[in-house]
Amino acid sequence: MNENSGEHTRPICILGLGLIGGSLMRDLAAAGWPVYGWNRSEKTVKAAQRDNFDVSGDLKATLQRAEEDDALVVLGVPMPAMPSMLEALKEHAPTVGFTDVTSVKAEVHALVEEHGLTDRFVGGHPMAGTADSGWKVTMEGLFQGAVWVVTYDNAVVLRDQDEHEGSAVRKRRWLDTWVRVVRMAQKVGADVVTTVSRRHDGAVARISHLPHVMAETLAVAGDAGGPLALTLAASSFRDGTRVAGTAPELVRAMCENNREALLKALDETLETLREARECLADESRDLKELAEEGFAARGRFEARAGRRKGDKTNRPIIRVRPGAAGWVEQLESAESMGAQISIF
Amino acid sequence: MNENSGEHTRPICILGLGLIGGSLMRDLAAAGWPVYGWNRSEKTVKAAQRDNFDVSGDLKATLQRAEEDDALVVLGVPMPAMPSMLEALKEHAPTVGFTDVTSVKAEVHALVEEHGLTDRFVGGHPMAGTADSGWKVTMEGLFQGAVWVVTYDNAVVLRDQDEHEGSAVRKRRWLDTWVRVVRMAQKVGADVVTTVSRRHDGAVARISHLPHVMAETLAVAGDAGGPLALTLAASSFRDGTRVAGTAPELVRAMCENNREALLKALDETLETLREARECLADESRDLKELAEEGFAARGRFEARAGRRKGDKTNRPIIRVRPGAAGWVEQLESAESMGAQISIF
Repeated sequence: MNENSGEHTRPICILGLGLIGGSLMRDLAAAGWPVYGWNRSEKTVKAAQRDNFDVSGDLKATLQRAEEDDALVVLGVPMPAMPSMLEALKEHAPTVGFTDVTSVKAEVHALVEEHGLTDRFVGGHPMAGTADSGWKVTMEGLFQGAVWVVTYDNAVVLRDQDEHEGSAVRKRRWLDTWVRVVRMAQKVGADVVTTVSRRHDGAVARISHLPHVMAETLAVAGDAGGPLALTLAASSFRDGTRVAGTAPELVRAMCENNREALLKALDETLETLREARECLADESRDLKELAEEGFAARGRFEARAGRRKGDKTNRPIIRVRPGAAGWVEQLESAESMGAQISIF
Repeated sequence: MNENSGEHTRPICILGLGLIGGSLMRDLAAAGWPVYGWNRSEKTVKAAQRDNFDVSGDLKATLQRAEEDDALVVLGVPMPAMPSMLEALKEHAPTVGFTDVTSVKAEVHALVEEHGLTDRFVGGHPMAGTADSGWKVTMEGLFQGAVWVVTYDNAVVLRDQDEHEGSAVRKRRWLDTWVRVVRMAQKVGADVVTTVSRRHDGAVARISHLPHVMAETLAVAGDAGGPLALTLAASSFRDGTRVAGTAPELVRAMCENNREALLKALDETLETLREARECLADESRDLKELAEEGFAARGRFEARAGRRKGDKTNRPIIRVRPGAAGWVEQLESAESMGAQISIF
């Protein structure tokens, strides 16, 4: 109903009010955006209502409302709940655009495709959060300065189908959803980085899922040294094993949902470690190569992300005009340099 | 000459005034202990003298002075300088007790043995320091709350030779050196943990050298994902690769000096990672075991070391009476529980 009065007045409908969905609701409401939502658990619904949020436990009614007022739907649910949410979305909100917040993207895109919802979907991955979960840990400001990945898989598909009939309408509608997702992420203070789902999953396998596997492995190796080893352990062990403190079921979910990309990263890692082992075992060789490559790699990371947590990042920012000629190529170019984007 | 007036008035002679040796000098002087030292570089000698420390560039004279006033000699030099220092010590200070501060212990003990100096030596490893080096980075308080490992290899040897002639004198002299090393470490605020060199090296391979190898490997794997991966990298990657920022030559030195123990830890790690890889590749299996073992291991570390850097540690403290009947067994028992010790 507010379709022509500017994207910021059209509502956001959040399904699933855990740490991400709930914190997003807090930030959007604080920014004055119309936002409402649904959660399966009655307890969360009551808690959110007590905090004066517009929240319901009736999924069907919430989706019908979203369809009626052309809300952007945010799926704040974890992966296992995704198929049933897509079914409900298809049935009760048959035209609205939607996004998600899960940490893998190829599997979600495949599910969306299976449900025939590709033209309504823009993938999202806000890279914020803690090991804690539930409405009680939601907070304002969670996304401030965090990266929010937004996918553009469908932009590539639509570009390559330019000649097809009806594609202009499809493109315009999808583009509208895409822009709304980007603006929403920026509204809550996130830096938007755009990519396609396969490359997203390959990257997070390396910089998020592999670090968890490495931390677990290191924790086990240290612990195998018994009390003496744990007593001597200092900051290199502390930092190297920190994320082994993540709940095991969360680690499993993130790793197993990104199986293929993580296997590739893990195989490379095994090869690097085997080579280091051979260099160490052979007294005519040394660890020079690994030590220098690792040092250079860390240096490139620090040049981009700052030396300490909370340092100002140093990423290029590319301005993009959504839908303009060549805009997909612009996104591809921004992605290749690890840039964040802003939109006209 | 001050032999009978209490250990705290006998001087400390520090050879090598880098971060460890220099900071030790600052702390001991601040505590009112007589302390003097030597450094090879004229620049360091001048800088230390400007800071009002009793420092010389003449190794022979410094060692002769140490011999004369029965100083405890602290070898603050890195491993490559160790053989020539032992030669000089043997020649110019033929009776004084001495300790070292290097991060591996078996190799140092072997060198000391080769030089026939075992009865005068107590190994030390203050687990403090940064990637920086030189007099300019020395500071007071560096050892406050840090673990200072003190070895007791020779106590085991002497115990097992109880029946030999002259062993009572040898034992008393070595014990005097051991006590002086422990008191010095405690004087500068360190927590003393005692162990034998082989087990020390096995433990630090797991909790210090392996973390460096893992951090280098993870940094390389993330960097191989290119700019997109580095842009998406957040705290799990940041913490997991922090020590890859250590100077490559330092990493090489610490790893290559502890080759045997690190190989063992690395082989275990490769086995754990290979198993994780197989679990991930086989859809009928999962990462449950690694995720749960890693979580439990990290939990045991946190129970001992606190959750965050700077938290109060929670180690047992065992009181030991050096040289009393059964004291070696007490040290072995303390070591097996990862306890720190205090002495009567």
